[in-house]
Amino acid sequence: MYLRNAWYVAGWDSEFKQGALTARKLLGDDIVFYRREDGQLTALEDRCCHRAAPLSKGELEGDALRCMYHGLLFDCHGRCIEVPGQERLSDKMRVRAYPVEIRDNLVWIWMGDSSSARPEDIQRLHWANKEGWSVEEGRYLHYDSSVQLIVDNLLDFSHLGYVHGKSIGTRRQGSIRPETQFSSESVSVRFTTMNSGAPAFARELGQLPDTVDRFNYYVWHIRGNLFVQDSVIAPVGEGYESAAPSTMKLHTFIALTPETETTAHYFWATAHNNFSSSVSDLTQKLTAQVEYAFDEDRRIIEAQQQVLRSAPDAPMIAIAADATLLRVRRMLDAMIASESGPNVPAQTAH
Amino acid sequence: MYLRNAWYVAGWDSEFKQGALTARKLLGDDIVFYRREDGQLTALEDRCCHRAAPLSKGELEGDALRCMYHGLLFDCHGRCIEVPGQERLSDKMRVRAYPVEIRDNLVWIWMGDSSSARPEDIQRLHWANKEGWSVEEGRYLHYDSSVQLIVDNLLDFSHLGYVHGKSIGTRRQGSIRPETQFSSESVSVRFTTMNSGAPAFARELGQLPDTVDRFNYYVWHIRGNLFVQDSVIAPVGEGYESAAPSTMKLHTFIALTPETETTAHYFWATAHNNFSSSVSDLTQKLTAQVEYAFDEDRRIIEAQQQVLRSAPDAPMIAIAADATLLRVRRMLDAMIASESGPNVPAQTAH
Amino acid sequence: MYLRNAWYVAGWDSEFKQGALTARKLLGDDIVFYRREDGQLTALEDRCCHRAAPLSKGELEGDALRCMYHGLLFDCHGRCIEVPGQERLSDKMRVRAYPVEIRDNLVWIWMGDSSSARPEDIQRLHWANKEGWSVEEGRYLHYDSSVQLIVDNLLDFSHLGYVHGKSIGTRRQGSIRPETQFSSESVSVRFTTMNSGAPAFARELGQLPDTVDRFNYYVWHIRGNLFVQDSVIAPVGEGYESAAPSTMKLHTFIALTPETETTAHYFWATAHNNFSSSVSDLTQKLTAQVEYAFDEDRRIIEAQQQVLRSAPDAPMIAIAADATLLRVRRMLDAMIASESGPNVPAQTAH
Repeated sequence: MYLRNAWYVAGWDSEFKQGALTARKLLGDDIVFYRREDGQLTALEDRCCHRAAPLSKGELEGDALRCMYHGLLFDCHGRCIEVPGQERLSDKMRVRAYPVEIRDNLVWIWMGDSSSARPEDIQRLHWANKEGWSVEEGRYLHYDSSVQLIVDNLLDFSHLGYVHGKSIGTRRQGSIRPETQFSSESVSVRFTTMNSGAPAFARELGQLPDTVDRFNYYVWHIRGNLFVQDSVIAPVGEGYESAAPSTMKLHTFIALTPETETTAHYFWATAHNNFSSSVSDLTQKLTAQVEYAFDEDRRIIEAQQQVLRSAPDAPMIAIAADATLLRVRRMLDAMIASESGPNVPAQTAH
Repeated sequence: MYLRNAWYVAGWDSEFKQGALTARKLLGDDIVFYRREDGQLTALEDRCCHRAAPLSKGELEGDALRCMYHGLLFDCHGRCIEVPGQERLSDKMRVRAYPVEIRDNLVWIWMGDSSSARPEDIQRLHWANKEGWSVEEGRYLHYDSSVQLIVDNLLDFSHLGYVHGKSIGTRRQGSIRPETQFSSESVSVRFTTMNSGAPAFARELGQLPDTVDRFNYYVWHIRGNLFVQDSVIAPVGEGYESAAPSTMKLHTFIALTPETETTAHYFWATAHNNFSSSVSDLTQKLTAQVEYAFDEDRRIIEAQQQVLRSAPDAPMIAIAADATLLRVRRMLDAMIASESGPNVPAQTAH
Repeated sequence: MYLRNAWYVAGWDSEFKQGALTARKLLGDDIVFYRREDGQLTALEDRCCHRAAPLSKGELEGDALRCMYHGLLFDCHGRCIEVPGQERLSDKMRVRAYPVEIRDNLVWIWMGDSSSARPEDIQRLHWANKEGWSVEEGRYLHYDSSVQLIVDNLLDFSHLGYVHGKSIGTRRQGSIRPETQFSSESVSVRFTTMNSGAPAFARELGQLPDTVDRFNYYVWHIRGNLFVQDSVIAPVGEGYESAAPSTMKLHTFIALTPETETTAHYFWATAHNNFSSSVSDLTQKLTAQVEYAFDEDRRIIEAQQQVLRSAPDAPMIAIAADATLLRVRRMLDAMIASESGPNVPAQTAH
């Protein structure tokens, strides 16, 4: 069961090459992406309406895509515009087309009812392509777990002390409670760790004192599974707005798009200020540190998923730190339930 | 659901060595084949009636086969003729034996009610072992798809222009309609491409002009899934009976035997006349070209099967070219339904 | 469906290293083993009661085990003794702890109701660590088959003549019937092969005449799936108590612990007297011979399991030699049924 009326991240702009057919499964739907001659993206159901051959094995002809089994040709709206050897074309001969938009190096796709897709609802990244912020090309992790288990992880800071105790977290963070503020479709989380040891990655790359103040402020957007975080590591007392040159300022973006009910796409990027002029390849090194930490998450979450596969009905006993994630899960369930009538069918053209 | 009262191809004669036990799954049944001392083939259920050990892990003793778990000995009719340490043998101690015949280098097996097996019904290949026709040893493809999807492919010529556009077909063939003539259990198809470009394989191996006439005449036999084709590529105007020495004449035989509901055995051979005296290894090269084309089919069909696995109930919208394959499917369904009473049980001796 | 109120072998003592977390699935339960500071073993449910992360990915802190997802700390009784950032701990915060005992180099675990676990019921190996008996370190086989098929094998001697005809058995043994004597939860089997050829392994390692008497006496313990055998190969006429120095005397122990319904752990050891002073590495060579024979069993049993997977409802027709195994299976079924009320739940703490 997916929330379908949402802009989900389908990939990084750079993944979709001119002239290529790119197949990706999103929310259980097989989708083929290609660029039209003007460079804009088309996303079609990756299954010919005739005999179900994958269109991603087809061939582009201008802005149209030909199925290479029996030769049906589809335009970029999913309409069949040619059936070899046949004059009359039925209106039923079509595949589903998905609204797609490119913003901030990301490809966004609307998985629900096309008529309600509003590009202005797409979450923007104010730092993308802005002077003063450095970032590597967007990264990708494939998860052999449900999106839900990853969401749980992102909404909980207590794991910082254990999963990441030797990388981006410190043991003391395991018992700090964040402040949270809920709105109708998101939650804002403020997690501060004052006057505490700097985490390993900061000690390695930065020029901060051993003791620092940390500010992790983020918003979790339920619709589309988006994590948008500003984080600051500053000398003690300098505050979130610290202007000290050694202050580390990071913007981290994570988008989770279900592949299936039990696997997930994890797109992410971390942009940073120039907190250290003496470290060469700073962006690359920082990205590697964050990637290492995200992989720590992946390993424990996939292990958790494995356990849940072999005992799906095992009870889970909540602790105090679970309040946020449990509330978000209830909000998501309500949002899914409120999608008008039965869920938008996943696999039919409309 | 299989049509069981049929002679199916179980393999090529040369696959079954004297002294060997060969295991093969056909129509869901695990079967062990071996040659008796006179070279004739026996086919038995590959599962001891005692504790289900596979007889293909057993040992031959003359014309009998001993299970190497507890030593039960079976004769070539499937009757247990020895239980170690036990004098009385029950009549129930037996495994199913399947009628088997060898014709034209092929091993044929009757998968239904043994009493209705008539060897004279076996489809003969008039060109096999005949002077003037050259052919490589029979070939084999394993398909990770149902037989039905392969049948659909063989009954449709529109795919020639797309799947095989750069090998044995030409794009123009995608929109030519064949003539078909139905009889009670087969369909004859005549597909002609007049005054048209020679396909790539003919340009590479033959000595024909650039423009040719092509005749593909075949019969599809529903019972046993047999494709028997005569094809001719001739100088324009020479006709199907062309005596021009450069005329390419081919006989292609394909037999599809279900392995399971979703996997298949594909046995094939292509014999040819001597259309080019100047090409060395002509038979080998021609066979390689045909094999390449059959592999083109396999790739798209297996991709199609993959899509159908993940969305088995997706609708398929027929086009005009599907008329033949849809009618053949209805005929097959009726033939299966008419097998007396419930289907012959797949896995029990009788 | 498992018999749970039993001491099962969980492994060899030497497998469980101080400081290590060892994960093993037994009777469908995921279990983590570790040694306390005094070297004694703890066995806990390998699933945190909070969010189901595997505790075997955790970290030891003295005698306690910390989950490395959110930091919950469990004592060696399975009680949660710390939840980071939370003062009050619920009594429900616990994982199941299993009684474990070490005897005769083996780790035994009680898989049922803890209150009925009596260490004095553990089957002892009188020869373990005793002078005059040599044995290699305990061995292990993983079986891709149900325990039941292996039990069937061990309770039947007719397979000796076929599966092991060229290793530890002789063809003649295929038709000898053993004497059996049943008690309430076990069966004693005496299988004698008088005045017969020595088996291959004895001819290779021993100093016996070509013709020997063989005595295989064993007890099969249904509770825990334990095979405890004394076997003697002696010069003809010397009898089971033979004092002739060339007499081979062996003690073989096999314990089968279900991993899942269709996979199994197979722990075994063979101790021997010093029947040959002239062979170097005698223990190692004998163990290799036995291992070879046990692998012969594994191959045919896994093949049998494969057949049963593809046709689970195929009938099995019993032969006379099956009387013992069928009776033992009925006894086991009755023992399972008699476990009070519904089966002890596999996966919940109590």
